[in-house]
Amino acid sequence: MKIAILGGDGFCGWPTALHLSEQGHEIHIIDNLSRRWIDTELGVQSLTPMDSIQERCRIWHQETGRSLRFHLLDLAKDYERLRQWLAEERPDAIVHFAEQRAAPYSMKSDRHKVYTVNNNVSATHNLLTAMVETGIDAHLVHLGTMGVYGYSSVGAPIPEGYLDVKIDTPEGEKDQEILYPTRPGSVYHMTKSLDQILFQFYAQNDGLRITDLHQGIVWGTHTEQTRRHPQLVNRFDYDGDYGTVLNRFLIQAAIGYPLTVHGTGGQTRAFIHIQDTVRCIELALGEPPAAGDRVRIFNQMTETHRVRDLAEMVAGLTGATVAYLPNPRKEAPENDLIVRNDQFLALGLDPITLRDGLLNEVVEVARKFAHRIDRSRVPAVSAWTKDIAGRVETDPEGRGLKSVS
Amino acid sequence: MKIAILGGDGFCGWPTALHLSEQGHEIHIIDNLSRRWIDTELGVQSLTPMDSIQERCRIWHQETGRSLRFHLLDLAKDYERLRQWLAEERPDAIVHFAEQRAAPYSMKSDRHKVYTVNNNVSATHNLLTAMVETGIDAHLVHLGTMGVYGYSSVGAPIPEGYLDVKIDTPEGEKDQEILYPTRPGSVYHMTKSLDQILFQFYAQNDGLRITDLHQGIVWGTHTEQTRRHPQLVNRFDYDGDYGTVLNRFLIQAAIGYPLTVHGTGGQTRAFIHIQDTVRCIELALGEPPAAGDRVRIFNQMTETHRVRDLAEMVAGLTGATVAYLPNPRKEAPENDLIVRNDQFLALGLDPITLRDGLLNEVVEVARKFAHRIDRSRVPAVSAWTKDIAGRVETDPEGRGLKSVS
Ligand SMILES: NC(=O)c1ccc[n+]([C@@H]2O[C@H](COP(=O)([O-])OP(=O)(O)OC[C@H]3O[C@@H](n4cnc5c(N)ncnc54)[C@H](O)[C@@H]3O)[C@@H](O)[C@H]2O)c1
Ligand SMILES: NC(=O)c1ccc[n+]([C@@H]2O[C@H](COP(=O)([O-])OP(=O)(O)OC[C@H]3O[C@@H](n4cnc5c(N)ncnc54)[C@H](O)[C@@H]3O)[C@@H](O)[C@H]2O)c1
Repeated sequence: MKIAILGGDGFCGWPTALHLSEQGHEIHIIDNLSRRWIDTELGVQSLTPMDSIQERCRIWHQETGRSLRFHLLDLAKDYERLRQWLAEERPDAIVHFAEQRAAPYSMKSDRHKVYTVNNNVSATHNLLTAMVETGIDAHLVHLGTMGVYGYSSVGAPIPEGYLDVKIDTPEGEKDQEILYPTRPGSVYHMTKSLDQILFQFYAQNDGLRITDLHQGIVWGTHTEQTRRHPQLVNRFDYDGDYGTVLNRFLIQAAIGYPLTVHGTGGQTRAFIHIQDTVRCIELALGEPPAAGDRVRIFNQMTETHRVRDLAEMVAGLTGATVAYLPNPRKEAPENDLIVRNDQFLALGLDPITLRDGLLNEVVEVARKFAHRIDRSRVPAVSAWTKDIAGRVETDPEGRGLKSVS
Repeated sequence: MKIAILGGDGFCGWPTALHLSEQGHEIHIIDNLSRRWIDTELGVQSLTPMDSIQERCRIWHQETGRSLRFHLLDLAKDYERLRQWLAEERPDAIVHFAEQRAAPYSMKSDRHKVYTVNNNVSATHNLLTAMVETGIDAHLVHLGTMGVYGYSSVGAPIPEGYLDVKIDTPEGEKDQEILYPTRPGSVYHMTKSLDQILFQFYAQNDGLRITDLHQGIVWGTHTEQTRRHPQLVNRFDYDGDYGTVLNRFLIQAAIGYPLTVHGTGGQTRAFIHIQDTVRCIELALGEPPAAGDRVRIFNQMTETHRVRDLAEMVAGLTGATVAYLPNPRKEAPENDLIVRNDQFLALGLDPITLRDGLLNEVVEVARKFAHRIDRSRVPAVSAWTKDIAGRVETDPEGRGLKSVS
């Protein structure tokens, strides 16, 4: 197949491009490199030394003889070029990773909120419109997030996108299947809820074939392909904006800091290893919906954990201690999260668990690159509201947040 | 109160500005005049001769001694100026009409789809972000549409925004109240579904006080205030993009053309008179939610009719005939629509009905300005999909659509 990987320079996109290239597909990476620019804006960098996308593509070719074609294109701003590119290349499938993906970054300031909404909505909508306009019959696979469900469940396991409900009508109770009611907890997550509605409309009105993957937090760094050469290494974000909770624990452990848990650590989150992410995308590509079908939604996660249990797990492996800090997010202090992922399991996904894979991350990534850590960048500092911002401040030693009082 | 009317140069915004000004409020109109530019793009004009916004404000002052302040500002593109304006003026209430509002225009081409999404999402989101950033405590009243509900009802009357459902959980059936599941039928309507999610988030995260009015199709031209002087007249759109079904029937009748009904005319729509629109906004402004409340949603409509019954009503008043044409929209050929509007009725709304007000429109507007009608502009020509576009074409005499073949 000819496959376009939008956002193929990113943390999930790059290993996906390699994985699908290795399987013999013709891969085109489209990216505006905005994520690299954000590194510059924030004054942070990947823990793993990351080469330019052009250099990475060159190394892949050198190692495997396979080509990756890179196209510098802003999906949100270059609608005309996007449409032209699709009309000329007519890919069979499109995997869409190209969005601003950090919740804390999306809450940093009004400018960051506006950027996140404009970038993500326009990228997704431009793509959908261009697909209709060019009349290509590509299968679109989009990366959504578990966060669209919100983290306060209705008490039942979260189904894969659609919820069965009963409604009272004059003719008695009626069964209805609806999109799971969305309750996003940040501007970033909100954009994924908006995406859902865009997909619903374009599948229904134009018969676009769309799969939406509601993904958990991705952990792990290496995949089979990125291990092949040091310059193929994946990015590893550990800063307070882009570093997910697990990555920040690993880094804190590596530099001998206490692991900073926000609030009670009772927040439950869903996780998946990067190797399983690329496998899931392969599986989803193999199961395209038919034209006229509703959007196919998979929950792309393999296990759930409470944040404080994660901290204990990392502490157990590394000897680190755990520190409880005020929470900069507006969220319930504790939540349950039971998620169905039957579809990927039925397709043969065999998950890598945190219990099995975490030590590897400690040794092969966190300790190995510990000399590159900028400790002042580890704490999360974006507050969700002005009220919260007034109540917390960054510890001067850069170890995390503390309450103002 | 100091009230900002965003989109105050438009069909609903202008009479609202006058109505609230007459009640003694301090009115600021913000508009980028894009609607006038779209008239230019389409080569159409309001049936009623419409003066510049500056001239209209001057006449209002001359007639009443009251001031209207006009600010040329693009909500979608001038975020910084918007924020600054809010920080300086600190309005008590904001009425937000400023979106691209025609479904056929939103479906005209890829460029129009992209414009509609970018304009409407950015306008609404910029406003919300700016309200949070400036910390003003204004009540935001937004104009949504009945179309967010979609037109295939679940069999029960459409409630005011929120639906009670029952969900199976391991502990038995649970009651839950959710946002009515959205099924927009055009890109325009889709943007109003996106708005809903933006409102939900900002009410929940930042405690913004928001009222969303799900409005039916507005008919009628004059209000008490616009009648005061010929130069205060409201706009009247009758072209295939912006003219709503009733306006186009009135114009077809005035020029002796058959009334063009799409499909079977079995589509049921909700309606409200412009005088009731301005009254509803007054009522909504008087009932602000408290900070922390969920978004307050009203259904702002007073009656429903099938399109073919509307055609018969206009035919009965004017002697026109009715012609059935192919439908350029992708929609169910027939639908029921039963809508609750108890909240506005309880607040004292006393609706003007089509039965009572329609003759007035025929005589005072359609016949009076018939000499200004450009008949080639009456037919609706935007097709919802490429398939449909291939099956219909515009009748060469400009009387409507006909099937190809
Ligand atoms: N990483 C996770 O834990 C995680 C979890 C759930 C969902 N996701 C989703 O998966 C996708 C990929 O995430 P990631 O971690 O790889 O993020 P990332 O930031 O590393 O990669 C995103 C890539 O998209 C590019 N991009 C952004 N906007 C663009 C635009 N307008 N035009 C062209 N390119 C653009 C960026 O330059 C970047 O290379 C995102 O949509 C994200 O929301 C990620
Ligand atoms: N007219 C109806 O029948 C009807 C029915 C239901 C809902 N509504 C809603 O009511 C609102 C007003 O409708 P209307 O009929 O008065 O439409 P309109 O097009 O006559 O008025 C909208 C006004 O907003 C302005 N505007 C648009 N984008 C802007 C931007 N980015 N910045 C500043 N100004 C901008 C336009 O110039 C115009 O003056 C719309 O949101 C519409 O969706 C209207």
